[in-house]
Amino acid sequence: MELLEERIRRDGVVDGQVLKVNSFLNHQMDIGLFNEMGREFYRLFGGERVTKLLTIEASGIGIACIAAQYFRVPVVFAKKNRTSNLSDNLLTTLVPSFTHGTTYQVVVDRAFLSPTDRVLLIDDFLANGAALEGLWQLVRQAGGTVVGAGVAIEKAFQPGGQRLRQAGLRVEALARISAMEGGSIQFVR
Amino acid sequence: MELLEERIRRDGVVDGQVLKVNSFLNHQMDIGLFNEMGREFYRLFGGERVTKLLTIEASGIGIACIAAQYFRVPVVFAKKNRTSNLSDNLLTTLVPSFTHGTTYQVVVDRAFLSPTDRVLLIDDFLANGAALEGLWQLVRQAGGTVVGAGVAIEKAFQPGGQRLRQAGLRVEALARISAMEGGSIQFVR
Repeated sequence: MELLEERIRRDGVVDGQVLKVNSFLNHQMDIGLFNEMGREFYRLFGGERVTKLLTIEASGIGIACIAAQYFRVPVVFAKKNRTSNLSDNLLTTLVPSFTHGTTYQVVVDRAFLSPTDRVLLIDDFLANGAALEGLWQLVRQAGGTVVGAGVAIEKAFQPGGQRLRQAGLRVEALARISAMEGGSIQFVR
Repeated sequence: MELLEERIRRDGVVDGQVLKVNSFLNHQMDIGLFNEMGREFYRLFGGERVTKLLTIEASGIGIACIAAQYFRVPVVFAKKNRTSNLSDNLLTTLVPSFTHGTTYQVVVDRAFLSPTDRVLLIDDFLANGAALEGLWQLVRQAGGTVVGAGVAIEKAFQPGGQRLRQAGLRVEALARISAMEGGSIQFVR
């Protein structure tokens, strides 16, 4: 998606293996851009009879909510910690965090994913694929179907995208980065 | 706001002093409802020359993103933990959590709040007011102006709303609950 690639080129900041897109994607959020991303996700997955968008707190929520206006379905966001306000009837899985070197629990109330659901996973970044794998696992636990995953930015030089696609998941990334060396960002062509 | 009150009556679950609205507001999210809420926030604050919506992860993000489409301004969400992907140039404050009995740090990158900003605070719940107070504090640190706070649900029997209004903040809640006794929900008239 040209608009997103241009924005990453203009406002993304490369710091080693980290790409900071805080100014428009995951701290400050450009809602006009999110609208174009949502439209593109709908172009890609609009024929899949999606019943629900599933994302994970916190950075995926804004993207998923704006995209949901095109799909006209609810958004569910998986929570990273079990809080007292959730029911005991939870779908749970463990997700390793490469950034923090730890593992965290991800939970969704069982009431919000069912065997008849056709779920599109949404997230801001795909790198090692651990978060999307965890979401996929939660939908499988519920007996539902994952129709694919829509991510804003894929770091295609990290192994997550390839592993998920080999496992049979349809993954669509709006911008696929092939290299970030010397501060310059290359996209997959 | 009649639509939200009806929804709370229909789908809200009272459990002691906790009101669970997981099925439409802060775990599964009804984006059609969020759109009507966004329209109402714009009716209330549309004349305030708002330049930015500020919320806090995670439950406020979806509401703020949908509302931002009416205001045509970016959303910034405050983060609850300092992560390595933020710059060192941070606005920070401490917020007590009554639910968890702890205090957490809330941060916003200084780049995203400036002295010229006119900020509308957005959150899902107002009870003790600690989160909104923290966000207000961050905008003050940046030298910006808070034009008010828009919240979905105020528990008006808890002290936050009164304290914030007495301190001079314009607080607008789309549904104001006066009592939740015996599982029945009463609204402020």
